[in-house]
Amino acid sequence: MSTMRDEICEQPAAIERTLKAEWRRAEKLRKHFDQNPVRLIVLAARGTSDNAAQFGRYLLEISTGIPVSLAAPSIFTLYRADLDLKGAAVVAISQSGESTDTNVVLERAKAAGAFTIGITNESESALAHLAEETFLVRAGKERSVAATKTYTGQLMCMYLLAYALGAQLKLDDLRRVPGWSASALKLERVIRERAERYCFMRQAVCVGRGLNYSNSFEFALKLMETCYVVAERFSSADLLHGPIAMLEASFPAFLFCPPGVTWKPMSELIGKLLSIKAETLVITDRSNKDAAKIKGLAQEPLTIPESLAQRGTVAEELYTPIPYVIPAQLFAASLAEVKGLDPDRPRTLSKVTQTL
Amino acid sequence: MSTMRDEICEQPAAIERTLKAEWRRAEKLRKHFDQNPVRLIVLAARGTSDNAAQFGRYLLEISTGIPVSLAAPSIFTLYRADLDLKGAAVVAISQSGESTDTNVVLERAKAAGAFTIGITNESESALAHLAEETFLVRAGKERSVAATKTYTGQLMCMYLLAYALGAQLKLDDLRRVPGWSASALKLERVIRERAERYCFMRQAVCVGRGLNYSNSFEFALKLMETCYVVAERFSSADLLHGPIAMLEASFPAFLFCPPGVTWKPMSELIGKLLSIKAETLVITDRSNKDAAKIKGLAQEPLTIPESLAQRGTVAEELYTPIPYVIPAQLFAASLAEVKGLDPDRPRTLSKVTQTL
Repeated sequence: MSTMRDEICEQPAAIERTLKAEWRRAEKLRKHFDQNPVRLIVLAARGTSDNAAQFGRYLLEISTGIPVSLAAPSIFTLYRADLDLKGAAVVAISQSGESTDTNVVLERAKAAGAFTIGITNESESALAHLAEETFLVRAGKERSVAATKTYTGQLMCMYLLAYALGAQLKLDDLRRVPGWSASALKLERVIRERAERYCFMRQAVCVGRGLNYSNSFEFALKLMETCYVVAERFSSADLLHGPIAMLEASFPAFLFCPPGVTWKPMSELIGKLLSIKAETLVITDRSNKDAAKIKGLAQEPLTIPESLAQRGTVAEELYTPIPYVIPAQLFAASLAEVKGLDPDRPRTLSKVTQTL
Repeated sequence: MSTMRDEICEQPAAIERTLKAEWRRAEKLRKHFDQNPVRLIVLAARGTSDNAAQFGRYLLEISTGIPVSLAAPSIFTLYRADLDLKGAAVVAISQSGESTDTNVVLERAKAAGAFTIGITNESESALAHLAEETFLVRAGKERSVAATKTYTGQLMCMYLLAYALGAQLKLDDLRRVPGWSASALKLERVIRERAERYCFMRQAVCVGRGLNYSNSFEFALKLMETCYVVAERFSSADLLHGPIAMLEASFPAFLFCPPGVTWKPMSELIGKLLSIKAETLVITDRSNKDAAKIKGLAQEPLTIPESLAQRGTVAEELYTPIPYVIPAQLFAASLAEVKGLDPDRPRTLSKVTQTL
């Protein structure tokens, strides 16, 4: 068993701790932003943290109406451009809090008059000292090179940030997420068995849409770094705008299929994949009853055994991304094991990567 | 010979036409924005046009200092979120001008008080009618499904847009780009020969940084849709944050290596790729003298036979992206031919893709 697998299993507790400990900071910040409204949110990150930023982009725009820009760090670090960031909230996300480039973005943004926020696992990091406010991911030390519990912890911090920026989210709703994540962990045995089939997989596509788009990036990244699979990541729309041509019979496709508005385009994509005879694996939950009815899938969907749809929220699938990434993480950890690889120490990588 | 190949060769003339015909619009808009400054630029597009938007993101932030957000269309089309876009310029980019989703973004943005701009190849399209101002790509009808001349035409329109938004660009500088593009076309014969070697390539990574980051997306997209190669695209920084683990001896890597600030991180990446013994192919020009000195490359760099570095501009490699993508386009067209595929009619695709 790998440390990665152990850290995957620590997630329900880590998310719960983060929510409990950081809710008051969100309340405090909400009062601040109520007095000092923000016109733009900039999110800066690399690697897995950048995937959390991708989720934040959708969540924040959908729930607060404030436009979001995902920063290109090189614009600050290499080109040294001066962006007009007055009235902006600039958020750096980093597991270690020691990423040089995202810290440079935050420093430059502060100098340009932006309000700066950190999201990190390390309370004594450079990032935590630099930012005006820091949400702490309470995941405990992450020992595997492959990030898992810090990703979902960062996602939880994004909900807190959305609340701070005026989103209509409730503590009671967020409190259900750790339990749903525990429910997703129950799929471990079936995923472990399923991974055998993919032992010789060399390439794949991971597809998500909207709030689960970031999970397709994170699933692909885990497959690339722990299983050495050349895994592409797309929204269902982007896949149809060209890359679908590379898919053929037996090409493996992994799809995040929550209930809600993204289901229609995802189900249409499934129809297209079935016609190509691609090998399609669906991740869903019990509330997406239509996913269970699809005919012709070679593989049974991986179904989280609870109903995650939340009517009356800004999006029915608002709280699915954290539980939904867990089967993907388990799949990558299992596949690495099946392939005889060590997901905790991928070749060529170290835990903290420094780039400019 | 394919239509794709013919359209690649039409590019110097198409870019020149676009620049000549649209410069006055840029001048006019510059006066408008001088009186009505913009606080945020939002770029909305899909597929190849989205890659042009990715270029625009870097160019506009570097040269104007105005923050840029690449729109996620589903936030408008599926989630129907109301974004606060007062004071924003929202730009939709579409070859046909008939993409439902980007047109929805523009409509909603207009209703929210944004200034709307179109960039399209079709003067009578829905987009051209919808936008308050439209830059016309003067590429002539694009007949191949694989977009080439409309991509570089859109890039040229991005320079015009940057000028309109206050960038210190000169008509005289831009006038050199068509000639440099013609110079890049001279590589056709050597690329045609080189493509043989890659006949059985199944996967690859395309890497660029900063202003040439979008070219790595566009090269990968062309390899995916015309050659069915599973081609990933990364910045050098993102590749190092995880995906590098999937690379091994003989793994093909294609690198855009202009002179300027991106050369240092790109050359460091080359060092790493050489240590893995990956199969590295460099695209560069005569002004990057360091690229010619790298020892140990299995493949000679593809070198555009002119000096493209422009000192005194906001970035030394400011005008490289249009000429630099041409060897990549030629490579994809040649490889498709070598593989016996028809790049003008990729399987599963049609010329106009409609998504929401």
